[in-house]
Amino acid sequence: MSAPNRNVLWGRALVDELVRAGVDAVVVSPGSRSTPLVTAVEEHDDLRTYSVLDERSAAYFALGRARRTGEVTPLICTSGTAAANYHPAVIEADRGRVPLLLLTADRPPELHDSGANQTVDQEKLYGDAVRWYADLPEPEATERKLRSLRTTAARALAEATGTPSGPVHLNCRFRKPLEPTPVTGDVPTDIDPLAAAGRDDDRPFVTTTAGTPRLDRADLRPVVEGLSVGRGLIVAGPTDPPGVDPEAITALAHATGFPILADPLSGLRFGGHTRVTTTVGGYDGYLDSRVTADWPAPEVVFRIGASPTSKRLRKYLSRTGARQFVVDPAGGWREAEFRATDLVVADPSRLAARLAELVGGPDAPEWRERWSEADRTHRETVGGVTGDGAGGYFEGAILADVTDLAPEPSTLVVSNSNPVRDADRYVPPSAAGYTVLGNRGASGIDGVVSTGLGAGSATTDHLTLVVGDLAYYHDGNGLLSALRCGVDATVVLLNNDGGGIFHRLPIESFDPPFTDSFRTPHGMEFEPTADLYDLTHVSVSDRDSFREAYADAVESDGTDVLEVRTDAEASQRTRERLLAATVDVLAE
Amino acid sequence: MSAPNRNVLWGRALVDELVRAGVDAVVVSPGSRSTPLVTAVEEHDDLRTYSVLDERSAAYFALGRARRTGEVTPLICTSGTAAANYHPAVIEADRGRVPLLLLTADRPPELHDSGANQTVDQEKLYGDAVRWYADLPEPEATERKLRSLRTTAARALAEATGTPSGPVHLNCRFRKPLEPTPVTGDVPTDIDPLAAAGRDDDRPFVTTTAGTPRLDRADLRPVVEGLSVGRGLIVAGPTDPPGVDPEAITALAHATGFPILADPLSGLRFGGHTRVTTTVGGYDGYLDSRVTADWPAPEVVFRIGASPTSKRLRKYLSRTGARQFVVDPAGGWREAEFRATDLVVADPSRLAARLAELVGGPDAPEWRERWSEADRTHRETVGGVTGDGAGGYFEGAILADVTDLAPEPSTLVVSNSNPVRDADRYVPPSAAGYTVLGNRGASGIDGVVSTGLGAGSATTDHLTLVVGDLAYYHDGNGLLSALRCGVDATVVLLNNDGGGIFHRLPIESFDPPFTDSFRTPHGMEFEPTADLYDLTHVSVSDRDSFREAYADAVESDGTDVLEVRTDAEASQRTRERLLAATVDVLAE
Repeated sequence: MSAPNRNVLWGRALVDELVRAGVDAVVVSPGSRSTPLVTAVEEHDDLRTYSVLDERSAAYFALGRARRTGEVTPLICTSGTAAANYHPAVIEADRGRVPLLLLTADRPPELHDSGANQTVDQEKLYGDAVRWYADLPEPEATERKLRSLRTTAARALAEATGTPSGPVHLNCRFRKPLEPTPVTGDVPTDIDPLAAAGRDDDRPFVTTTAGTPRLDRADLRPVVEGLSVGRGLIVAGPTDPPGVDPEAITALAHATGFPILADPLSGLRFGGHTRVTTTVGGYDGYLDSRVTADWPAPEVVFRIGASPTSKRLRKYLSRTGARQFVVDPAGGWREAEFRATDLVVADPSRLAARLAELVGGPDAPEWRERWSEADRTHRETVGGVTGDGAGGYFEGAILADVTDLAPEPSTLVVSNSNPVRDADRYVPPSAAGYTVLGNRGASGIDGVVSTGLGAGSATTDHLTLVVGDLAYYHDGNGLLSALRCGVDATVVLLNNDGGGIFHRLPIESFDPPFTDSFRTPHGMEFEPTADLYDLTHVSVSDRDSFREAYADAVESDGTDVLEVRTDAEASQRTRERLLAATVDVLAE
Repeated sequence: MSAPNRNVLWGRALVDELVRAGVDAVVVSPGSRSTPLVTAVEEHDDLRTYSVLDERSAAYFALGRARRTGEVTPLICTSGTAAANYHPAVIEADRGRVPLLLLTADRPPELHDSGANQTVDQEKLYGDAVRWYADLPEPEATERKLRSLRTTAARALAEATGTPSGPVHLNCRFRKPLEPTPVTGDVPTDIDPLAAAGRDDDRPFVTTTAGTPRLDRADLRPVVEGLSVGRGLIVAGPTDPPGVDPEAITALAHATGFPILADPLSGLRFGGHTRVTTTVGGYDGYLDSRVTADWPAPEVVFRIGASPTSKRLRKYLSRTGARQFVVDPAGGWREAEFRATDLVVADPSRLAARLAELVGGPDAPEWRERWSEADRTHRETVGGVTGDGAGGYFEGAILADVTDLAPEPSTLVVSNSNPVRDADRYVPPSAAGYTVLGNRGASGIDGVVSTGLGAGSATTDHLTLVVGDLAYYHDGNGLLSALRCGVDATVVLLNNDGGGIFHRLPIESFDPPFTDSFRTPHGMEFEPTADLYDLTHVSVSDRDSFREAYADAVESDGTDVLEVRTDAEASQRTRERLLAATVDVLAE
């Protein structure tokens, strides 16, 4: 491998190892210091490059893609504050276990704290939020350094996809020339070909083979015994990418007779298994203490995934006093009510499949039926309600309409604040081929648009993004990726003019400061974003026109924004009224 | 001071201390966990609150305000990724020595790494970029804790305004209730009044009196001797807030006979002193080695402020081999060519005033005249050039037109990339009452709009913001602050469709990847942002219409965006042509 200078060789070797390890897409933000990396990426015809100008959006775009695929998405930026713009997505990737590789270009070491331009301290910039950090040595065309570089690239990918998966940061220092300018003698002609050009056979420089934690037979016994009871629950919280195996979890559900309480982000709310397995989705709409007061307590809870979105479910689980197995492949203690009794460090799908063969408790059909009935009652109560009581279109009904109408297969990305909570409560389990994603690692609203478009970039599914006005505004820059990255989406924009979520909170009763400092109405209407980003924009305010517009958007090319004006307060009152109505029926 | 619960008391005590220490404005982004802080801020009638929805923009808004005033601007956000969105501005504040106080709300300690919602590791989130970090204890209405809180608040402000000034981070943990909900017994009635309500006399709990480094007479002697020569230069780089004292620096210039090479961000490019002091501003347009080859070398260089924007100046200084005094009140070593010979830790204004009384070298009028003549030649060469050679309006001429037309007093905020460089090269020193600001700490383009509006919020000056299309797009969200925070600005948007700066770099010759990965044309036109943010938008493409539109904008209320379409490549060729022409004349 000849190269005009050491930086070109260095960039090529790094990118070469990424491609050998299976990386097929890179997200690049323009800048100068990163030139050796960017030119190497551009040389690869089979490496898809997404150019995203705002680094905050870029990182969330990569996050969305990696969340959808479970595969590492590298990011490249220049030196300075560019790298700090990745920080929000890095934190989400940490908490949400999404594999990212941050390649931040940097200036040579002697410029640090020297007053040099665009030079900041990028060492360990993301603190403990990354799985691994390495400061690459200064590029040099020597066998030792190139071997170290290729090894580091392989390791970075292995760390990002380890257990738990997550972000990895490589700080890449370059000194000029950054461009493919020939520098005589910079790359010796007799350089070791293996170090310079990598292995002959397209394999990575180092191949990682990683085991996953599996329990010994003796360790398995107490888990089997714990689950060999009549009344139990399988609680599936938001799943880590690339998701759980529905077959394995439903096999355990069948073997135990336990219903699955499936978070909308669990990968289990939707799919063929819901036809034959008791899959419960409405719990957030009725798990009130008035309802559950005379329910028998579950004897055991088997939890997988992250903490469920539903606070009402979390509180119920902690009230019951049941034995709670928390299964986490990385040994994470993701149970913030401190009611876990057994932490099981194992891959949830493999463990479930194995347990399904071993458990054998009494069947408790009345227990399953209790949950099915509650779900049914909830569905019947909310079923006909499409208005918010003030004559507007109820926010919860919009979520239900989206999942009623979305084509299959679909990827649905739901924003934090109200959309994910409404999806949790109002979208019943179904056999539809939907992949539902959200940023529940850190639950920010700051990169939802880009997360959605990034997820869409990885799939031929139809993509729907359900987002509130604050999230749409916050990552409005992300909309540029629809056109620039060639991602078509149907964006359902619930514009309730500010922080509708605050109507759920006690601060609602204190005004001031409620309106000015919490609700923060901004009066924005987002039709101009259509011109700005070359999108189609439709405003709708009632159910029929929404359903029609959504169906049209699904059929059309390009990205459509369906802006639905809703009344946050009225919608919240409707949520409360529906909850009370379901609770009244079930508590009778 | 009675309070319904401990959190309310805690928030009030913290905000009370900020106000006592002189804080008069706070930037708040909506969220729930920060409720006790936000409600306390809202209670203060004489505390100006700026509500900025996007935390990245919020932090830059605060930065702009603090840069303009030199006073600490506190920021309040909720827990989670919100705080990470501050990171880019925190880095700029660190490198640019801008006093900020980051009040990040957080969840109680036991929720950390527990899987709880919106809970991330906020400890030392900004690493070494802050002057001080403290994790506040959990609120409690005890004398000891409240004394510690008031002391910490006083200390945080002292650290932020220390030498060097910069960002300070207080992580503020709260557990529910966050609202002013009464909690019986939470605030004892017999609580110590001093701890609960602060001092009787409106003074801070602790008053800080900080000295500034001043040299002893013996230490001063070598500096006086070093400057007592004929040929010297005073090089004023970008100034730290709140700026240098022009009188002191010009007194030194008069006493030594040295010209002042005044960066556009030095605070010395403009002002009455330029009438009577040799103030040089065109150096970036002629300091070529062909020109300076037969110039006598300066015997001494007296540097204040940060590293100058002009690379050509930095390279010239390093070529001359002159003795270089680098004066920095914080003992920063801001000289990245490693040609400093003497680091002087002292306040530059006080030192200059003192030196002015002591120095006494031979006068070298021909040395001053050489610089004046070079500046004059440069001005004459570029003076008549308003086109870019391709028939378009030359980007450099736009900067010159802005400073020709801006009313007095004006605050001018220039973006990184081309605007600050064009300001450096094409805007001659003048007596105008202009305060020119830019983010040269880390030189990011990510928060320029908000920086400008934040600066504008602190002054009754007319505000002009000169920004490229990428910076305008990057911080487009910041435009919402014009309306919401009541700041009127004239925004000069130089739209050259992508990264015009890359035409300055060698990568221009390598296409691909130049156009797609560096230049990155996006095709955006920004007229729709006017509707989105309720601004006035005018498109102009030639000089006359620009000058007319600018004059109109100055007269009108509200924020006007003057979008000027320019040709990046043609403008760069014009810069090169003008440089060559000036160099040809001077090298003769």
